[in-house]
Amino acid sequence: MMIQDLNGHTSAQALAEESLYKQVALRIAELIEHGTLRPGERVPSVRKCSEQQNVSIATVTQAYRLLEDRGVIEARPQSGYYVRPRRWTPPPEPEMSRTALRPVNVRVSDLILEVVKAGRNPGLVKLGATLPSPELFPIKELNRTMAAASRRTPIAAHSYEVPPGNRALRVQVARRAMEAGCTLAPDDIVTTVGVTEAMNLCLRAVAKPGDVIGIESPTFFNILQIIESLGMRVCEIPTYPREGICLDELEQRLRCCRIKACVFTLNYSNPLGSCMPDEKKKKLVEILAKRKIPLIEDDIYGNLTFAARRPKVAKAFDQDGWVMLCDSFTKTLSPGYRVGWVAPGRFKEQIQFLKYVNTSATASLPQMAIAEFLQNGGFDHHLRKIRRLYASQMQRMSESISRHFPEGTRITRPTGGMCLWVELPPGVNALTVYNQAMAAGISIAPGPLFSAKQKFENFIRINYGNPWSGAIDDAIQRLGEIVRAMTNGNL
Amino acid sequence: MMIQDLNGHTSAQALAEESLYKQVALRIAELIEHGTLRPGERVPSVRKCSEQQNVSIATVTQAYRLLEDRGVIEARPQSGYYVRPRRWTPPPEPEMSRTALRPVNVRVSDLILEVVKAGRNPGLVKLGATLPSPELFPIKELNRTMAAASRRTPIAAHSYEVPPGNRALRVQVARRAMEAGCTLAPDDIVTTVGVTEAMNLCLRAVAKPGDVIGIESPTFFNILQIIESLGMRVCEIPTYPREGICLDELEQRLRCCRIKACVFTLNYSNPLGSCMPDEKKKKLVEILAKRKIPLIEDDIYGNLTFAARRPKVAKAFDQDGWVMLCDSFTKTLSPGYRVGWVAPGRFKEQIQFLKYVNTSATASLPQMAIAEFLQNGGFDHHLRKIRRLYASQMQRMSESISRHFPEGTRITRPTGGMCLWVELPPGVNALTVYNQAMAAGISIAPGPLFSAKQKFENFIRINYGNPWSGAIDDAIQRLGEIVRAMTNGNL
Repeated sequence: MMIQDLNGHTSAQALAEESLYKQVALRIAELIEHGTLRPGERVPSVRKCSEQQNVSIATVTQAYRLLEDRGVIEARPQSGYYVRPRRWTPPPEPEMSRTALRPVNVRVSDLILEVVKAGRNPGLVKLGATLPSPELFPIKELNRTMAAASRRTPIAAHSYEVPPGNRALRVQVARRAMEAGCTLAPDDIVTTVGVTEAMNLCLRAVAKPGDVIGIESPTFFNILQIIESLGMRVCEIPTYPREGICLDELEQRLRCCRIKACVFTLNYSNPLGSCMPDEKKKKLVEILAKRKIPLIEDDIYGNLTFAARRPKVAKAFDQDGWVMLCDSFTKTLSPGYRVGWVAPGRFKEQIQFLKYVNTSATASLPQMAIAEFLQNGGFDHHLRKIRRLYASQMQRMSESISRHFPEGTRITRPTGGMCLWVELPPGVNALTVYNQAMAAGISIAPGPLFSAKQKFENFIRINYGNPWSGAIDDAIQRLGEIVRAMTNGNL
Repeated sequence: MMIQDLNGHTSAQALAEESLYKQVALRIAELIEHGTLRPGERVPSVRKCSEQQNVSIATVTQAYRLLEDRGVIEARPQSGYYVRPRRWTPPPEPEMSRTALRPVNVRVSDLILEVVKAGRNPGLVKLGATLPSPELFPIKELNRTMAAASRRTPIAAHSYEVPPGNRALRVQVARRAMEAGCTLAPDDIVTTVGVTEAMNLCLRAVAKPGDVIGIESPTFFNILQIIESLGMRVCEIPTYPREGICLDELEQRLRCCRIKACVFTLNYSNPLGSCMPDEKKKKLVEILAKRKIPLIEDDIYGNLTFAARRPKVAKAFDQDGWVMLCDSFTKTLSPGYRVGWVAPGRFKEQIQFLKYVNTSATASLPQMAIAEFLQNGGFDHHLRKIRRLYASQMQRMSESISRHFPEGTRITRPTGGMCLWVELPPGVNALTVYNQAMAAGISIAPGPLFSAKQKFENFIRINYGNPWSGAIDDAIQRLGEIVRAMTNGNL
């Protein structure tokens, strides 16, 4: 699984045995292969390269011509040489997930908090938690905005606003919702302590202990934990790795499982990275509204699209207020601020009451700082930047896994978000991989965390939220070795 | 109920009809009566007064002698005249509350959120919510501390710490716990979004929907709402206005009511302001531990003592981890920060899990700022200041109510905290008083909010957290008129 030239040789191998100009070409090819030079980027000019490599202009010219012949770089008139888009063949994708037809109690492994905590160890290469890399937060701008807000309105900053929460923030959230296809008024929104509180409130507003909640399979383990903590049960719905839940399978379960509410992450679900096409979302909303089943929509990754425009939310198709849209700024601005929100549709009164009795209010200053940051346009600028970065990090992570993991590995093709769902060859046990990886200083999230029945035994989730680095590539190589050893041993 | 001179005349009345020196004396007496000059404070010197009032030195001397004769001021050698401590007779206290012997479902009036929200109207004289006055927050110091923390450790400030939460804060909380008689380690503590979240987590850790929770009667309405939202029932325990719950009555109910846990505010309970003596706390802890009944202790007012030393917490007598101590910085430092904590004893694992699934984490920067503020000694300095202020505001509020409310009014004698519990003459309806007061631009909290069965129909809670002012005195006078009119009409 390496970059191959037109003759089927890997560019590094084929060039290694040749003479001086081929050695120069090899070095450039390696820069490209390791990601230092990326597709579409300009290659050093002939003169610069001749200086850098200490060879003649003629040698570099010959080397670049060879790379051009092999399809690695391309000349653009008046502009120089550029890295060509890769003809990279990724490994296959996982297949549709399969789940039981009946509801099950949730008893999530105690491993989750251990995994989450272990993932904070500063010594680790962090591929486990789906947290944005702290280097990518707009820290200076947010600090400045917060300091200004606390100076300008000191009393408001230290008082608290009862639900629905900070109005300036709700105004900004309502404005932004248009991009996701939604028409929301500030008073349709209640601010929360992250999306975690929002989902707790939604579940408590519409279901009771013992009730059955429809979820995706695999689903983010936090959702499983929340449902468990509320004494509710789940019905897991099969998913396609690109489009998310299968509507036919959903309808089948709606007929037999007394599903009380659904919790779905339709845009860049965690861990699949799947994104349901907008027309399918519309159908989903209709299916549920017809049966008066609330849809708790977690859109925490919706803004992290790799496309030119972000996808719509299901809430955009909500006619009768059955969709409860939850979002937060944890994945885009600052996890430490703990600011999220919910647009609870017809359940607004219950949500306001529950928010008030659960935490009284959300911290004021973080809400004020985010409201101002959004108003100043800082958020859009920041989003453009991190979308580009995450797209490129996803590409590099996929390529690295392709190179280092054994045959039989499958990976998803996310078009947004920050995680890859990796199916290891049959028989490889993800928990064993997790333990060996931790011993090697690498955190990952093992598949069994993502299902109420601890399925997905040979899956792992890998977070690509951190800026690409040699350390990450090395960690993936080490992971690949761990998996390969288990493959050899098992097969 | 006014300040009376030795002859039984009010000082203002008696002096009004007299000549020039008496007019001067009247003005000084009014300054004292309205609280501009307070007991123990120095009265303007004779010369200064003669300048201010534009009268001769002799007239002022005569006026001061009169005031001295009447016991209003006193001369101190070499030092001048001082306002004498008042011979003020407060009205009687309410009696012990009475409650039913059986558990009841909680269905709290929808009025609560309305009362809480209405209380935020900036145009109101706010005697309703028990919030500290924003003018009393150490805003500048906190802003400076927070800005410094976010500059010094920007990545930590924008990341979040999973439960148990920010370690620096837990270290400081553990150190301070010694003052309340507790030996806590940082790892015995979990930080929360205010005491509201702490109490939610505690209740969810130890009880299920349908279970019976023992509470004080009257009790803070937020506690009733939390219990209602969790589908639990309550058993209300009678209280004495000075010492809180009656242990005999508690034991009687423990025998017949299957109480699963208790939620008590033993230090300066809301609304009574009662404080259970430490030896009685010890007995309470023994009674509950013997039956393996968790005590959820809300100590949010414990630091707001008027005494030289703060009282102990029940947790100080906890041998076997049955006491779950909840506290926050909402009443002392900054409501808007939303930072609280719980020392959950033997239930730590459950509390950590529930905290993680409820809100993932508490906002980082507010925790960091408070930790640093505590470490720098800023908190002790601030506490000394606000304790003095609240003590004096309580005294003035009590006196004002004594003056303006009709015969038959009873008020509590809080020794800490920030509210007075006022029993109106029989037949006066607190909800009617509330509505008329709101129409007059004054917020109060009507008694029926403080009981699951909407008892306390002729009680109101009055917050004295705001710096004393003429506007507050006027509001109390207006309230007194409203109550008096209803008394006349009803009796």
